[in-house]
Amino acid sequence: MIPIQRLSIIGVGLIGASLASGLKKAGMCNEVIGCGRGVKNLEQAIDLGIIDRYYHDPAQAVEGADMVVVAVPLGSIAKIFKSINEALLPQAIITDVGSAKLSVIADAKKYLNDHLAYFIPGHPIAGSEKSGVTAAKSDLFANNRVILTPTKETNSEASEMVQTMWETVGAKVINMSAAHHDQVLAATSHLPHLLAYSLVNTLSKMDSKDEIFQFAAGGFRDFTRIASSDPQMWHDICLSNKDAILQMLEYFNTDLNQLIEHIKQQDSEQIEAIFSDAKQVRDELFLINSK
Amino acid sequence: MIPIQRLSIIGVGLIGASLASGLKKAGMCNEVIGCGRGVKNLEQAIDLGIIDRYYHDPAQAVEGADMVVVAVPLGSIAKIFKSINEALLPQAIITDVGSAKLSVIADAKKYLNDHLAYFIPGHPIAGSEKSGVTAAKSDLFANNRVILTPTKETNSEASEMVQTMWETVGAKVINMSAAHHDQVLAATSHLPHLLAYSLVNTLSKMDSKDEIFQFAAGGFRDFTRIASSDPQMWHDICLSNKDAILQMLEYFNTDLNQLIEHIKQQDSEQIEAIFSDAKQVRDELFLINSK
Repeated sequence: MIPIQRLSIIGVGLIGASLASGLKKAGMCNEVIGCGRGVKNLEQAIDLGIIDRYYHDPAQAVEGADMVVVAVPLGSIAKIFKSINEALLPQAIITDVGSAKLSVIADAKKYLNDHLAYFIPGHPIAGSEKSGVTAAKSDLFANNRVILTPTKETNSEASEMVQTMWETVGAKVINMSAAHHDQVLAATSHLPHLLAYSLVNTLSKMDSKDEIFQFAAGGFRDFTRIASSDPQMWHDICLSNKDAILQMLEYFNTDLNQLIEHIKQQDSEQIEAIFSDAKQVRDELFLINSK
Repeated sequence: MIPIQRLSIIGVGLIGASLASGLKKAGMCNEVIGCGRGVKNLEQAIDLGIIDRYYHDPAQAVEGADMVVVAVPLGSIAKIFKSINEALLPQAIITDVGSAKLSVIADAKKYLNDHLAYFIPGHPIAGSEKSGVTAAKSDLFANNRVILTPTKETNSEASEMVQTMWETVGAKVINMSAAHHDQVLAATSHLPHLLAYSLVNTLSKMDSKDEIFQFAAGGFRDFTRIASSDPQMWHDICLSNKDAILQMLEYFNTDLNQLIEHIKQQDSEQIEAIFSDAKQVRDELFLINSK
């Protein structure tokens, strides 16, 4: 028997479409129902064989589904929960792919009240500055990590099912608390994105900006790549993970101001220690990760 | 006649060795003399055909040279100028590759007094987080920019000769004032490097650092690539271009603190405007550059 009979993907973007595509390829699901607003995107998803049919109404899209993946921007998750709550099968498993987890759990507690045990908060650590169904790849999650943050209300079989689903598309699944997830991601993903956006913003306001950008070399290109990410998505992340992000920004600011002070004082020893330590950490990190 | 009879490369690292290699390949110079401290590196440069012979003493290395390229870290340039000043041929052309230019010009005024008209401050905008002669490539500068910052004392024929040298290895040469160079580079190169170092430093001090780094994905990898750069070199840049760097850090800090305030206030409109503007600028920039 195919583990998932009817998979409902709410939000047929890069993540939702890649997951559906990988599950279909693996023979893990019988039928995929898409849900979204843009007809063109949904028609493309049908043409690419990623979904079988679609609805614009989330309540219709989850009818009869045994697995529902909510893959919309964080800021739209509450609204989706609200609109599907009554249409869901009693034992339908619901998961999401949001980059912040405490806020999504709060949304679920508010709007998925009948299904809380079957809601498994999830976050695949994969993505791209590209978006939309045409960027989808069935192997997007291969060897990437997916974090699940089950709560004390979570049904463990449902959680295992979601884990199996992600493992089927090649992901490595890790379980942790939502609070810890939000801190780790604020550090490793959210903070760098905000710095990259903020840097480009600063430079673009300068008088000699055309000349400045003319001399942007490879380092700048790499450093600012994440500033080409979806502004709406990152706006949502900022608000959904506000507390952890503000905490990280405070840590960063303290350290940056200390470095500024060292430069003002021309304190060679401290400046070089900061740079050397950072280089060592970064070199070790990507040596380890590339193994 | 070969334009350069005897080329002296003081500092046979990535930049010096790549330049020598490209000039040799183009038949632009007759003989290349290397100068450095590490015997192994210098022997490798000979084995690779990049230099013909070497000295450890800069004064010996510039004897009889018609072109001298000082390719040592910024913090060592003054010392090199001091030690070669009396050994240089009267009309030898001297240039450097330092990432800050006002400080190098100040060094030259102090220590190259007999040769100021023939000193052409230069800065190739190319590099890599790799270093040393084994990373050298004869085409490292192809289609990259080289900035020259001649002063009012500079001999124009000498300046043209340095321009021709860089164009021979495929670089596009731009002339600007040293002060302007230092501002532009502080914005486009020095600031991003400091932010990347400082971010890695902040994360590495956190309690859950192992876990944080475990979830570092592609965005983080790209963002922090420049934190793997040479700490000594970046220490020197911080001190040599202190004023312009501190100015840029102040601009950046002001904008970052404004973003923090917007997040605290949950000001959706402002947050999204900052991200959207940055994305647009960055997307346009690399669309234009890739043409």
